[in-house]
Amino acid sequence: MAEVKIIKLNENIYAKNEDQAEQTRKDLAAKGIFFMNVMSSPGSGKTTMLSKLINMMKDKVRIGEMDVDIQSTIDAQRVADATGVRSLQIHNGGLCHIDAEMTANAIKEFGVENLDVLILENIGNLVCPAEFDTGAHKNVMILSVPEGDDKPLKYPLMFSKCDVILINKMDTLEYFDFDLEKASSHILKLNPDAKIMPISAKTGEGMEQFANWILDERAKLNK
Amino acid sequence: MAEVKIIKLNENIYAKNEDQAEQTRKDLAAKGIFFMNVMSSPGSGKTTMLSKLINMMKDKVRIGEMDVDIQSTIDAQRVADATGVRSLQIHNGGLCHIDAEMTANAIKEFGVENLDVLILENIGNLVCPAEFDTGAHKNVMILSVPEGDDKPLKYPLMFSKCDVILINKMDTLEYFDFDLEKASSHILKLNPDAKIMPISAKTGEGMEQFANWILDERAKLNK
Repeated sequence: MAEVKIIKLNENIYAKNEDQAEQTRKDLAAKGIFFMNVMSSPGSGKTTMLSKLINMMKDKVRIGEMDVDIQSTIDAQRVADATGVRSLQIHNGGLCHIDAEMTANAIKEFGVENLDVLILENIGNLVCPAEFDTGAHKNVMILSVPEGDDKPLKYPLMFSKCDVILINKMDTLEYFDFDLEKASSHILKLNPDAKIMPISAKTGEGMEQFANWILDERAKLNK
Repeated sequence: MAEVKIIKLNENIYAKNEDQAEQTRKDLAAKGIFFMNVMSSPGSGKTTMLSKLINMMKDKVRIGEMDVDIQSTIDAQRVADATGVRSLQIHNGGLCHIDAEMTANAIKEFGVENLDVLILENIGNLVCPAEFDTGAHKNVMILSVPEGDDKPLKYPLMFSKCDVILINKMDTLEYFDFDLEKASSHILKLNPDAKIMPISAKTGEGMEQFANWILDERAKLNK
């Protein structure tokens, strides 16, 4: 039997993924399209947050949304129904993540020519999606108050990889033992450049700051 | 270059895993040890629930707890501090799951000779842990109210694999749009034999029913 080196294989997979991701970033930047990857645990409020965000921004910029799920089409439908923007459901065949090639194929299928901002709602998982660069210009994650302030300690890679960490469900803070200062301190130890934004997708609290950050990042692309 | 058949490889991995899992189940049953695997999203309350459960049961049965995390030791320490029972932290080296061989090694390391009930707190993830039989006699998962009642539709494999689905954080029901009937109906469509138990690990609501289920399952082992 031939020897199989699993580590070697993984290195090749990651290197190939990185090449495709860089290509996607360049292609989209050349078209003036800002591409943002949104990750979180299941149930942290990705779909609700994105519906709110898109409704706030859709008169200023042309937005498209792609949604990854194992097999349902609930999220893409919810975003499309709530916002009226064009939405694509990606089924990833039971995988725990989406890689740069799958993302590039989805972008091709979706058609992004008339967009200013492209959003990828990743699969709900704090482990695997952090390992695969999708080709997004920026990574955003949501940590919701009911999940607890210790999550950065337990899923450090995810918190290290994200440019913005939205702390969602701030309207429920009084019902949970969640210490915002403690959560922020854990995050900044892993990722000193992280932007931490407390929000409530339900009430809209803090969402304007996030929308403005997206507009700023898009403006930087064209410079 | 030789052809590589990924599917074949995966089939072998799963088949080998299944053999080890069956061995673990037999070995532990022969010793009268009931082995339960607890899975959920990050932040659904696994550690809090287990601390409460162990404190309720530890005078009746001898319990040991093994806790899987990517790199922290928070959870094993929290359970040990809260309950005084023996607890082992397993670091899985960044993986998104734990398989039967890793579990068997951990059991050997931990030493289970004097136990009646062995609990595995799996990594917080609704995708990957569902794919790997750990060798537990029963699988239990937690869905917490803040995560939403649509989760069975989005993570169907996990909900299909579990014998008991605990609906946790019932004390926060009035603050969230969570329909218990809808969640139950989604679960039972995937898994008609699932036992659905609404609980609050914080207040203790519903926990007695779950503790009794564990005692019943343990009693069945010895028949």
